[in-house]
Amino acid sequence: MNRNVYVAGLGSTAFGKHAGTSIEALAVDASAQALVDAGIDRTRIGAVYLGNFISGPLNGKEVLAGLVAGQLGLQGIPCTKVEGACASGGIALRHACMMVAAGIHDAVLVVGVETMTHASTPEVTSALNCALDNENDAQSGLTFPGLFGLAWRVHAQQYGTTREDIASVVIKNKAFGLNNPLAQMGAHLTLEEVCASTMIADPLQLFDCCPPSDGAAAVVVCAQELLSDRPHDPRIRVMASVQTSGFASLSQLPQLCSFDATVLAAQQAYKQSGLQAANIDVVELHDCFSVAEIIDSEDLGLVPRGEGGRWAAQGRTGMHGDVVINPSGGLLAKGHPVGATGVGQIVEVALQLRGAHANQVPGAAIGMTHNLGGAGVACTVHILGREA
Amino acid sequence: MNRNVYVAGLGSTAFGKHAGTSIEALAVDASAQALVDAGIDRTRIGAVYLGNFISGPLNGKEVLAGLVAGQLGLQGIPCTKVEGACASGGIALRHACMMVAAGIHDAVLVVGVETMTHASTPEVTSALNCALDNENDAQSGLTFPGLFGLAWRVHAQQYGTTREDIASVVIKNKAFGLNNPLAQMGAHLTLEEVCASTMIADPLQLFDCCPPSDGAAAVVVCAQELLSDRPHDPRIRVMASVQTSGFASLSQLPQLCSFDATVLAAQQAYKQSGLQAANIDVVELHDCFSVAEIIDSEDLGLVPRGEGGRWAAQGRTGMHGDVVINPSGGLLAKGHPVGATGVGQIVEVALQLRGAHANQVPGAAIGMTHNLGGAGVACTVHILGREA
Repeated sequence: MNRNVYVAGLGSTAFGKHAGTSIEALAVDASAQALVDAGIDRTRIGAVYLGNFISGPLNGKEVLAGLVAGQLGLQGIPCTKVEGACASGGIALRHACMMVAAGIHDAVLVVGVETMTHASTPEVTSALNCALDNENDAQSGLTFPGLFGLAWRVHAQQYGTTREDIASVVIKNKAFGLNNPLAQMGAHLTLEEVCASTMIADPLQLFDCCPPSDGAAAVVVCAQELLSDRPHDPRIRVMASVQTSGFASLSQLPQLCSFDATVLAAQQAYKQSGLQAANIDVVELHDCFSVAEIIDSEDLGLVPRGEGGRWAAQGRTGMHGDVVINPSGGLLAKGHPVGATGVGQIVEVALQLRGAHANQVPGAAIGMTHNLGGAGVACTVHILGREA
Repeated sequence: MNRNVYVAGLGSTAFGKHAGTSIEALAVDASAQALVDAGIDRTRIGAVYLGNFISGPLNGKEVLAGLVAGQLGLQGIPCTKVEGACASGGIALRHACMMVAAGIHDAVLVVGVETMTHASTPEVTSALNCALDNENDAQSGLTFPGLFGLAWRVHAQQYGTTREDIASVVIKNKAFGLNNPLAQMGAHLTLEEVCASTMIADPLQLFDCCPPSDGAAAVVVCAQELLSDRPHDPRIRVMASVQTSGFASLSQLPQLCSFDATVLAAQQAYKQSGLQAANIDVVELHDCFSVAEIIDSEDLGLVPRGEGGRWAAQGRTGMHGDVVINPSGGLLAKGHPVGATGVGQIVEVALQLRGAHANQVPGAAIGMTHNLGGAGVACTVHILGREA
């Protein structure tokens, strides 16, 4: 990157059910918070990037970037919706970072948004399936729970990962969710309760799956000269911003329990930042299903290959572990309003680096986010660092 | 722009009906042509931008950028769908240009694509309405033909523009379409025939409206050092690449027969290129309706305000006029596969600057494209110049 890029303003609605609130209103709410938090005059915002996946099919609404900007009083500037399935939010953030780094704009508003809870389960499933290669894979009959159920079976067979190992991800994340005011849900669960939840796609059970959610998250990124003297210093710098692509078709996946796009993005992010996995204090990663957290933690190099289940079971990814994963509650408990998720992860990690998170990781100085789309077709990884 | 950006490779399917061909296949076809035409090794392609508007609602398919890249054998690189209603293609191009100009990538593939003809008219109308501010404007009952019908009435009242004036746009563009192998339709029409076509939204008649279309267009943009020695020299440089936004709500539009986003984009494009309207030899602009060509030609400063209708009637925007508008046939005759249109315009203008167009404008050295989304919510303007 040519210029340093900073995360200057944070905003978010709670993730959950927002019946009766329009998708535009959610995005405007989060954006307005981020603009105020940044303390940057709105006339300095050079562009808007909006991450959204399925507002077309589920709401009959597109051009959301322009609609939301208009309602925020941002006129004339380039407003772009970007889409990469569940990675849409991370892709929006990356574009904002590039614009600032390249000197094209000094400050950019990023907002991710989705509404899903108004739609029926078949409608949501059908819309989420837009992220698959339906031309080639439809005949498999797989939906995402089916895919991750298979991934679980492979992981279990290859590495000996157990139901109990994977339940510990659910128990950890649902407990984190209890304390996070932005989270859709939270619970103190026992292993027995996880194992008793409804079977969805064997071996995936209900509590292993993230819920459909409504919500929006926003950040303002800017160049150093636009940082205001805010009480919430320290400054938070974007140390890496990476976007990759992977195989779009299930039938092309070289294996089911690793995603090439994540492995590549992590490599590039470590190189870009000059950091290693051991430097990462806190991670918000894409646990759309419990087993996904285990796969992601291995793909990101945070946990040795095949050890994800055991590390989770041993508490090594919990609050007092080697690396703290998803203290927000993750997608499993915080919720997964698809287009908002990648931006919400940045809000969560930035709050950690500000020392202001409800589930604060003591001394968190470097954080990572990981946002994965489809069956690994799109991935973003960001590394944020606290400046003294 | 920091680095010069060149349009190095062109590809396009014909616009029209492609029953039985998937949206991915159309995009792959155009992209493969552009890659071959550019003569740039695929391993040098740093990113893919795909412009698409309504594949979600009409095809149940998203993540098209990654899907198409995967089928082209482009693995690992950032692949992003961008959306800004009918300006999606132009927005894709602008992002590719910025990436090359900023030195983030040396060569980028841009592809725009849409399929619409498989859907019923109500489905297409409903999908196109995703570009409106449905939260605020739905009660007006307006669709796009209704909006442009109203704009026509205002233009007629304010400037004395007649049915005959506007018919001359239809007659010109449909005649151009006859000769363009990429065009969906073409015809030698008489004034009487235009006036006899079915009434759609008074005074807009059928021949005043662009057709729903299937199609894809692609270009490769690159830095100077990647330009190969191709027989189709001269080089074509991107002299301006601009994206703006305008009012999203019909109720907010300050007037009905001018779009602020176009006026602003044109101003910025002239400034960026150091050129004036008088320097433009050929223009491909967003004639979604006949009257839109008249409005756009005024908003772009190519024709004095209020004179668009008369200039068209006097042949001043035809092949031997002051400025040649839409020699491709425009959206009216070439067709309007929404996400493809903005990229297709670049293909058309680049062919003109190569001296290789079926409707060649003699000596064309500088060309402009104009792509407008929704009711003016998003706009892109590009200026391309032939280098000796």
